[in-house]
Amino acid sequence: MLIIGERINATRKHVGAAVANKDEKYIIKEATEQEQFGAHMIDVNAGKSPEKEVEDMKWLMELVQKHTKLPICIDSANSKAVAAALQLNKNGRPLVNSVTDEQPKIESILPLVKQYDTMVVALLIDEKGVADTVNRRMEIADSLVNKILKIGIKIEDIYVDPCIFPLSTNGINGLDAAESIMKIKAKFPGIKTTCGLSNISYGLPLRALINQAFVVMLMTAGLDSALIDPLDKKMVSLVYAAKALLNKDEYCMDYITAAREEKLV
Amino acid sequence: MLIIGERINATRKHVGAAVANKDEKYIIKEATEQEQFGAHMIDVNAGKSPEKEVEDMKWLMELVQKHTKLPICIDSANSKAVAAALQLNKNGRPLVNSVTDEQPKIESILPLVKQYDTMVVALLIDEKGVADTVNRRMEIADSLVNKILKIGIKIEDIYVDPCIFPLSTNGINGLDAAESIMKIKAKFPGIKTTCGLSNISYGLPLRALINQAFVVMLMTAGLDSALIDPLDKKMVSLVYAAKALLNKDEYCMDYITAAREEKLV
Repeated sequence: MLIIGERINATRKHVGAAVANKDEKYIIKEATEQEQFGAHMIDVNAGKSPEKEVEDMKWLMELVQKHTKLPICIDSANSKAVAAALQLNKNGRPLVNSVTDEQPKIESILPLVKQYDTMVVALLIDEKGVADTVNRRMEIADSLVNKILKIGIKIEDIYVDPCIFPLSTNGINGLDAAESIMKIKAKFPGIKTTCGLSNISYGLPLRALINQAFVVMLMTAGLDSALIDPLDKKMVSLVYAAKALLNKDEYCMDYITAAREEKLV
Repeated sequence: MLIIGERINATRKHVGAAVANKDEKYIIKEATEQEQFGAHMIDVNAGKSPEKEVEDMKWLMELVQKHTKLPICIDSANSKAVAAALQLNKNGRPLVNSVTDEQPKIESILPLVKQYDTMVVALLIDEKGVADTVNRRMEIADSLVNKILKIGIKIEDIYVDPCIFPLSTNGINGLDAAESIMKIKAKFPGIKTTCGLSNISYGLPLRALINQAFVVMLMTAGLDSALIDPLDKKMVSLVYAAKALLNKDEYCMDYITAAREEKLV
């Protein structure tokens, strides 16, 4: 289970301010703490204002990679920002997050994935909108995954993101996400799955608790990776425990080591 | 998800001592706290010494039912103790835990289940021993469930317990338990499942954490009930969260109510 540390996202208020003010100290702390608390990869999202995103992405890429050794999840829908980040990448193979099944994204982002031989998130959105049912997810995955495979990306480098909707708007949304993950993995053997899971708890009290249970539920369904907050120690602990329970941690060694290092709660 | 409070078990050191000393105060505290912290049913296990079990079971049944309104899970392999408990039962329909697929248990315990019209746990053990693989579980379930149905017990009153083995002895034990639960529920539509899940964490550090992740994993596989410690607030909280995520809590009302009552952490 690949933990992508989600904190360096300029749409978060304090991070947005730090990016605007070029507050190196704040960003360095967010980067190093996420590494220290168990992230395997660092998400970098420079915000959504098109005129500043390329410049901010460059600043973040250089700063973050100077202070952690973790690979980067390049989180942008803007191909210019993605290209700029890839040029500056030096922490190992990055994950481009994301490409959707919309023609402009296919034409602008997929060639970069190919050129830099990166891993890629296939986000289940097409011209008709976001996938909001199991059937729509399967329909878009079918089309999008095949386009990515066609340009020569290996199946194990594709992370499908099923798009998570809040439980508070429809009680079936959690189960639908789990079912989609199972079906996508059954349909494309070897493929990986990821998601930003915290959407599930939108509008509910004690959101962290719902997110904690959801990560275990989705891992049981086959989830390979998630954007999560590594500073939520209980969440990271449950990920370690679930990995052991799902027989993805030989002799429970990662779990036992993390317990010895007092990382678990 | 039916939470069976597991604490009044005389094989636990302090409870055993309280039973031996007829320490009413200790047992009353264990009963009332479990009700207060979210148990739906109270397990009563009077210990395993045959010469004292009937007497101790009677004492516990009367005491516990005087101080809680919850139904009782009568936890004994001794048909005399089960019969004594059933005679004293007055808190609604009890759950007899358990009958196994061994001829003496079938002959001594199953008639009591029929006579008192109780719910019953079908524990997957037969003359050859405890079910320790998915195939053995299916083999015993097939035989035992049909015997229980044959005497006229309704399918929804049968709780199959797949028997949980420690992860530390074999990394597949958690996954096997989940798979068994899925298969049992698929084979016998309407049947229920339960287990004492804490065996899974035997020999590992931070056992409560493994148990917490395991309950969510097994609920995802279809678990309907478990023997758990309701005083583990995080465990109970994750059960509430998982129930909502699995669409078994309409409009998340139980979850939201529990959050308002500050039961969740």
